[in-house]
Amino acid sequence: MKKICTIGGGTGNFVALRGLKHYDVDLSAIVSMADDGGSTGILRDDLGVLPAGDARQCIVALSNSSRLMRSLMNYRFENGNLRGHSFGNLFLSALEKVTGSFEKAIEEVSRILSIKGKVIPVTTQQVRLKMVLKNRTMLEGEKEIYLSEEIDQGYESLYLEPYPKANHQAIAEIMNADAIVMGPGGLYTSIISNLLVEGIPEALRETKATIIFVVNLMNRKGQTTGFKVSDYIQEITRFIGEDIFDYILVNDQKPPRELIDKYSSEGDLVENDMLEERVVLASLLGPLENKSSADLMNRSLIRHDSQKLAQELMRIITNVDKNCSLALL
Amino acid sequence: MKKICTIGGGTGNFVALRGLKHYDVDLSAIVSMADDGGSTGILRDDLGVLPAGDARQCIVALSNSSRLMRSLMNYRFENGNLRGHSFGNLFLSALEKVTGSFEKAIEEVSRILSIKGKVIPVTTQQVRLKMVLKNRTMLEGEKEIYLSEEIDQGYESLYLEPYPKANHQAIAEIMNADAIVMGPGGLYTSIISNLLVEGIPEALRETKATIIFVVNLMNRKGQTTGFKVSDYIQEITRFIGEDIFDYILVNDQKPPRELIDKYSSEGDLVENDMLEERVVLASLLGPLENKSSADLMNRSLIRHDSQKLAQELMRIITNVDKNCSLALL
Repeated sequence: MKKICTIGGGTGNFVALRGLKHYDVDLSAIVSMADDGGSTGILRDDLGVLPAGDARQCIVALSNSSRLMRSLMNYRFENGNLRGHSFGNLFLSALEKVTGSFEKAIEEVSRILSIKGKVIPVTTQQVRLKMVLKNRTMLEGEKEIYLSEEIDQGYESLYLEPYPKANHQAIAEIMNADAIVMGPGGLYTSIISNLLVEGIPEALRETKATIIFVVNLMNRKGQTTGFKVSDYIQEITRFIGEDIFDYILVNDQKPPRELIDKYSSEGDLVENDMLEERVVLASLLGPLENKSSADLMNRSLIRHDSQKLAQELMRIITNVDKNCSLALL
Repeated sequence: MKKICTIGGGTGNFVALRGLKHYDVDLSAIVSMADDGGSTGILRDDLGVLPAGDARQCIVALSNSSRLMRSLMNYRFENGNLRGHSFGNLFLSALEKVTGSFEKAIEEVSRILSIKGKVIPVTTQQVRLKMVLKNRTMLEGEKEIYLSEEIDQGYESLYLEPYPKANHQAIAEIMNADAIVMGPGGLYTSIISNLLVEGIPEALRETKATIIFVVNLMNRKGQTTGFKVSDYIQEITRFIGEDIFDYILVNDQKPPRELIDKYSSEGDLVENDMLEERVVLASLLGPLENKSSADLMNRSLIRHDSQKLAQELMRIITNVDKNCSLALL
């Protein structure tokens, strides 16, 4: 059975995992620990726990339990002091308090939610994502960085404080994987936030796994404005120290004009400017209707389709020997 | 297998259930829905959910799951906006929101906690316990009644508002039980609060079950000051309309003098003034050390021992035919 390891955080990771879950593979999801917005941020500040939101999304994506339990995990209280808190975050945070360990908390919730695979925090240290812009502005925290519209003006540095050591299990998963899937997801907040952990870039450079990057569908205004596929690869490569990608999966299905227009205040479509063989083009767009389905899916109107994405990833992973190109298939 | 049904709420119920769980019996716990204090009260007010606290305690008492899961259910958040909320209450309340039904919420949590038996809310209507004192003071809510020190001055009326119909399942359990165990517990707030539900007194009068009342160890100052065993029976009989008790289980083990003195600001020992054959005397006191064990047990220093209580109850239930007295055994 192929061992597949995803690296990310947030909604993008959710989409990939939800699709991959249906294949006969050994899955592990390494998640960013930089989240500090919303319910997760309040719990971090009030209780001193590690950020639960990204782990919760992965657990729900991999869960084989009833729809009820999955809805419960994503349920947000609507009134009073609890308003805005996701039940799943409270679940993980209370378990972290009771067990004294965020990893044990994840294990226990994973068991209750009957998940396929494992969810692994990239580090178990309490960290803050920070960015210093070219204009010397300091952005503190993932939320502030995610909401900034100035990053495309240039930044001096991006780092986690304190500089954390990787979770040993995360390193082991990277080293033992047959395939690693990075992305889609917020470039700085969900992808690179994993690469700022001591030991992760080294492991990624050393692993024998086939490494696939899934490029975002859309750029985010003020963050990656005007980015083309090569810009994503270059930016990530700066943090890994080497271009490690065996395959780069790019959507080539155009969304309808009116949707692009509607989305234009948030960002523009990512164009492909790479003609190398490792770039795999595929039709990956999700259905454009039912915008109001799962609460996790609401953030973006233009999104990957779990099934199509997983199918394409599996085609790459199962058919390709690292030494021959996809063109030979 | 004997069908045993407990009626109560709060800590007293917890003690009885925790002991009975270890016997080969079919258990159901009917719980009061009048709680409106603490975490439960806030959730009722903020979210409009039914009171979770008593049901949670019963679920934990009957749980066969890991110590970790039981600790989690009783875990109280210590900081921020969540401070004081019990995780188990949040679990039940979030599930009630997601499923739209408190009973379904109990079922789901019961499944996750692998409970032995069933926990059944006495009513599924949203109610408030109210008491009008002789001096015309109106006490609103279980918490206010529980904290009042004027009840022993006399009260005019005690009722639930609105007057609720019983949960059909509660009636069925009472009618089908081989034995019913009422108490120990707060007389007005945990015992009688169940008897104010339409259909419950009738069912208790009609059932063929052996009915056992477990008398509290201590009176509560200002509530049942100076009550003797017969006062408890009389007071409860007023609300049922008939003295239904086949057995009255009374502790006859004296706590150490210094503990009684220590407790004297809260209340006095309940004395037995009934010499009838149905009154069963037994040594039922819990260990007097480790005051700080389970969070549920902390409320009272002088308390029933789960094992002794269950053993005595089982002796009555398994050996006694309703038509012959215990003396014949």
